[in-house]
Amino acid sequence: MVAKAKKLKIIPLGGLDEIGKNLTALEYGNEIIMVDCGMAFPDDDMPGVDMVINDITYLEKNWSKIKGIFLTHGHEDHIGGLPYFLKAINVPVYGTRLTIGLVEHKLKEHNLLSSVKLVRAKYGNVINAGQNFSVEFVRTNHSIADSAALAIKTPVGTVIHMGDFKIDTTPIVGDMIDLARLGELGKEGVLAVLSDSTNVERPGYAMSERSVGEKFEQIFKGCNKRIIVATFASNVHRVQQIIDAAAKNGRKVAVSGRSMENIVEISILLGYMKVPEGVLINIDNIKKYRPNQVVIITTGSQGEPMSALTRMAFSDHRKVEVTKDDLIIISATPIPGNEKSVSNVVNELFKIGAEVIYKSLAEVHVSGHACQEELKLILALTKPKFFIPVHGEHRHLVLHKELAQKVGIPEKNSFVLSNGQVLELDSKTAKIAGTVPAGKILVDGLGVGDVGNIVLRDRKHLSQDGLIIVVVTISHDSKEIVSKPDVISRGFVYVREAESLIEGVKHVAGESISDCLGKRNMDWSTLKSSMKASVAKYIYEQTKRSPMILPIIEEI
Amino acid sequence: MVAKAKKLKIIPLGGLDEIGKNLTALEYGNEIIMVDCGMAFPDDDMPGVDMVINDITYLEKNWSKIKGIFLTHGHEDHIGGLPYFLKAINVPVYGTRLTIGLVEHKLKEHNLLSSVKLVRAKYGNVINAGQNFSVEFVRTNHSIADSAALAIKTPVGTVIHMGDFKIDTTPIVGDMIDLARLGELGKEGVLAVLSDSTNVERPGYAMSERSVGEKFEQIFKGCNKRIIVATFASNVHRVQQIIDAAAKNGRKVAVSGRSMENIVEISILLGYMKVPEGVLINIDNIKKYRPNQVVIITTGSQGEPMSALTRMAFSDHRKVEVTKDDLIIISATPIPGNEKSVSNVVNELFKIGAEVIYKSLAEVHVSGHACQEELKLILALTKPKFFIPVHGEHRHLVLHKELAQKVGIPEKNSFVLSNGQVLELDSKTAKIAGTVPAGKILVDGLGVGDVGNIVLRDRKHLSQDGLIIVVVTISHDSKEIVSKPDVISRGFVYVREAESLIEGVKHVAGESISDCLGKRNMDWSTLKSSMKASVAKYIYEQTKRSPMILPIIEEI
Repeated sequence: MVAKAKKLKIIPLGGLDEIGKNLTALEYGNEIIMVDCGMAFPDDDMPGVDMVINDITYLEKNWSKIKGIFLTHGHEDHIGGLPYFLKAINVPVYGTRLTIGLVEHKLKEHNLLSSVKLVRAKYGNVINAGQNFSVEFVRTNHSIADSAALAIKTPVGTVIHMGDFKIDTTPIVGDMIDLARLGELGKEGVLAVLSDSTNVERPGYAMSERSVGEKFEQIFKGCNKRIIVATFASNVHRVQQIIDAAAKNGRKVAVSGRSMENIVEISILLGYMKVPEGVLINIDNIKKYRPNQVVIITTGSQGEPMSALTRMAFSDHRKVEVTKDDLIIISATPIPGNEKSVSNVVNELFKIGAEVIYKSLAEVHVSGHACQEELKLILALTKPKFFIPVHGEHRHLVLHKELAQKVGIPEKNSFVLSNGQVLELDSKTAKIAGTVPAGKILVDGLGVGDVGNIVLRDRKHLSQDGLIIVVVTISHDSKEIVSKPDVISRGFVYVREAESLIEGVKHVAGESISDCLGKRNMDWSTLKSSMKASVAKYIYEQTKRSPMILPIIEEI
Repeated sequence: MVAKAKKLKIIPLGGLDEIGKNLTALEYGNEIIMVDCGMAFPDDDMPGVDMVINDITYLEKNWSKIKGIFLTHGHEDHIGGLPYFLKAINVPVYGTRLTIGLVEHKLKEHNLLSSVKLVRAKYGNVINAGQNFSVEFVRTNHSIADSAALAIKTPVGTVIHMGDFKIDTTPIVGDMIDLARLGELGKEGVLAVLSDSTNVERPGYAMSERSVGEKFEQIFKGCNKRIIVATFASNVHRVQQIIDAAAKNGRKVAVSGRSMENIVEISILLGYMKVPEGVLINIDNIKKYRPNQVVIITTGSQGEPMSALTRMAFSDHRKVEVTKDDLIIISATPIPGNEKSVSNVVNELFKIGAEVIYKSLAEVHVSGHACQEELKLILALTKPKFFIPVHGEHRHLVLHKELAQKVGIPEKNSFVLSNGQVLELDSKTAKIAGTVPAGKILVDGLGVGDVGNIVLRDRKHLSQDGLIIVVVTISHDSKEIVSKPDVISRGFVYVREAESLIEGVKHVAGESISDCLGKRNMDWSTLKSSMKASVAKYIYEQTKRSPMILPIIEEI
């Protein structure tokens, strides 16, 4: 009998059916490597939650197999889960220089830096991980410097993970995405490609990052106002272009917002940002210059409540006061779900009388993700046998699969997977073979995973109609009510205007308890649920609202 | 001394700095007329609130002056506040036939129909209101039938309120907006125009509603699947076009969703919708036909949680089961804030395997509001001395004012007002002269105005981190704790996984009370706030969360 040939497993644990918390495991025999380890922002239906990370049950069970984590780039949805993962499983982390620089900063905040092995890789480097994997970093373009695709050689063939990318023929720093290398790999033979589906709904090509710089120069030239530009802190190239346009027009640059300060510091330190001598000034010193001598680069392009731009707009920033002599440029488009917050910030800035440039129409932003023509080009170059669309909501994955058919990848060779599904491949075949645990772990304050569905359901219920607490003290001996029920409400109604309603609740609760106490075989849980039901019924009849009712019975 | 000439006051009470709850009062001497009386949907920061209406303190104080309410059209943001207003102040309501039809339906639901005087007006009708006002209904085009601009003659000049409008040269039913009459009024002389700012950010012209119908016919023709179209119920013309395209292709039409059923019924009854004999079928009968013989028209184009389309997408609709043999068309664009819900619904439909046409790119939707060229045209035709941009967030109003300058309305003659500001005009001048009360009144269940800032703040707090209740019973006589503190939490943490935390809270609460009870001059409120502070501190140290802490002290 011949030993059954081993198969390669590709297991996406995060990043499918969502844009966020990317994490893919590749497993062969006794070895696993991971691509990325991201976080996601909470949805609207997760009130109070700070962050969402992946369920890593499967990796914890197989911890001894893991040879390393390979990072495609330094965005939070690709590295944000690392501190939580590394606390559980300490494995080496590989990435390009800026990516590792950002990871270092993150691990320092979590007091993990000294215990983790971080390895800097250059484009073209091939890193062996265990006996079965070797990983080559291939240059790509994206809205952060030093992004990479990973060409992963395995015993059954080469798998390419594209990371997040676009094709920028005129990038700001460094070279264009290494299409030649991708083409070479294609000629050698590629088993499977995993590719970025974010912009699959958009026809054509993404514009070059450089086009934004040209627009900045146009706007800055001859502008007599102070200029404030909000953008993503991690878009090092965007920030560089703002600095360049400022310097060219004899303006100083100040930076506002914690993440912006961090990234600018790290980028300058690592040589990813070049600031002409004397251009960067401390935000405390902006008043020493005339308005037309200053550019402020700030966080808050998504209208985040606590961000620097939002605080400026609502006159709540300690160091920058926006006036009608300011020009504000929002160099970003709202991420789905943030439209209203951004719109609120723009309205506030208009109220102050400031000039605001905020439409993508004004060409002050381009996307960092490939559009349809670029996506097709990558598939045409790499000619994979199998295709797995990743980094997208379900519709993006389906549309990417349909797009792949146009460049000749048969429908049966494309796999729209869900997180946790296992795709098993050998050099000729691929099939879905079972699932492993996958899901959302919620981070709230210091708690990881202690907020789940019941807690969220209660939070939502409380937010909708508030709560009513009914406290009753009952004598242990006589089984009689010792004092009249007490009623406390929060988030329900102005109590002063609802005295008769509260009196009504007391009355109904008291009656319900007296009824119960009179019965034989009375127990506490029946008493509580009966009181709860009567009060809920009464409140709904009176108000058509359904607050949470909490009966508290003290026995003395 | 000459008696001071009376002035006209224009007082917007709702609809400025917001899209929603439109209401404008015009006052001259002892007479007031109102234009529209709308509602708004609650913002994200109003959890549990059903609806927002206007503060009408000013109108209540001046109730005896009010001569009538004139409605521009039947959308909720123009008529939704009527039941609440009419309960407080019963005045006659004037509108075109469909508008009044919709108002009738609304008042019936609130048991108000018999007590209110409703007057149907035709285009061209001039209605006298009191001694000082006469109102003419002028035909416009909009995404609901029977929309009107109001030409209001006053002793100081003519004021035109445009309502919501677009210019549609090829409307589905009826004629194009009466540009000739608007031009005539312009020649006679117009004192002031109030105009719709919704689409002021969009260059060019809004497409004709008819273009959507052509697209429907294209899609329906030869389609072998069952077709489900989601759109706004109130868009009578859109629904008509779907019915027409269905009939042309030999399909039956069924209707799903309460508001869709209502509007179709009212529209057919009033003759605003023409359905060929035998085309309309009951939703219960759709299974009697092959998929390619059926079109279902449904609500839910905004991804509303309880709407028919959302229930279909999540396999929760009692009568329609979506399969991969369905084509779903979402004939609408998401209203800002609804992007994520719509996106979720689309993803669910993709998961079922259905085909979904959902981009505005696919030309299955056009806007009902005028774009820049149309807005300029109206101002150029009516040539008002003064201009008041309405129906928009602050930035829309400012941009509309800037647009007006391009057609020759000097900046000083345009007024960007806030709700409650009073604009005082005579035949030559206009100036802002004070303010009257204006604001948001929240409707929650049966309660109108009993949910305010404190209640909302509590609801938001509860939704973020939940609550912890600490119950302590203290002896009245001995001033000692009778039983160990009890701790109840909701929306905070899984209690089973946090036993030691809850024990810690009991301990901290007990210590804090013992400390207090030991002191002289102890009072209940000090006791409570001290216990609250110790527990909050302990919880924050342990979890970095700040749940609401409710201390309950029972004295026996």
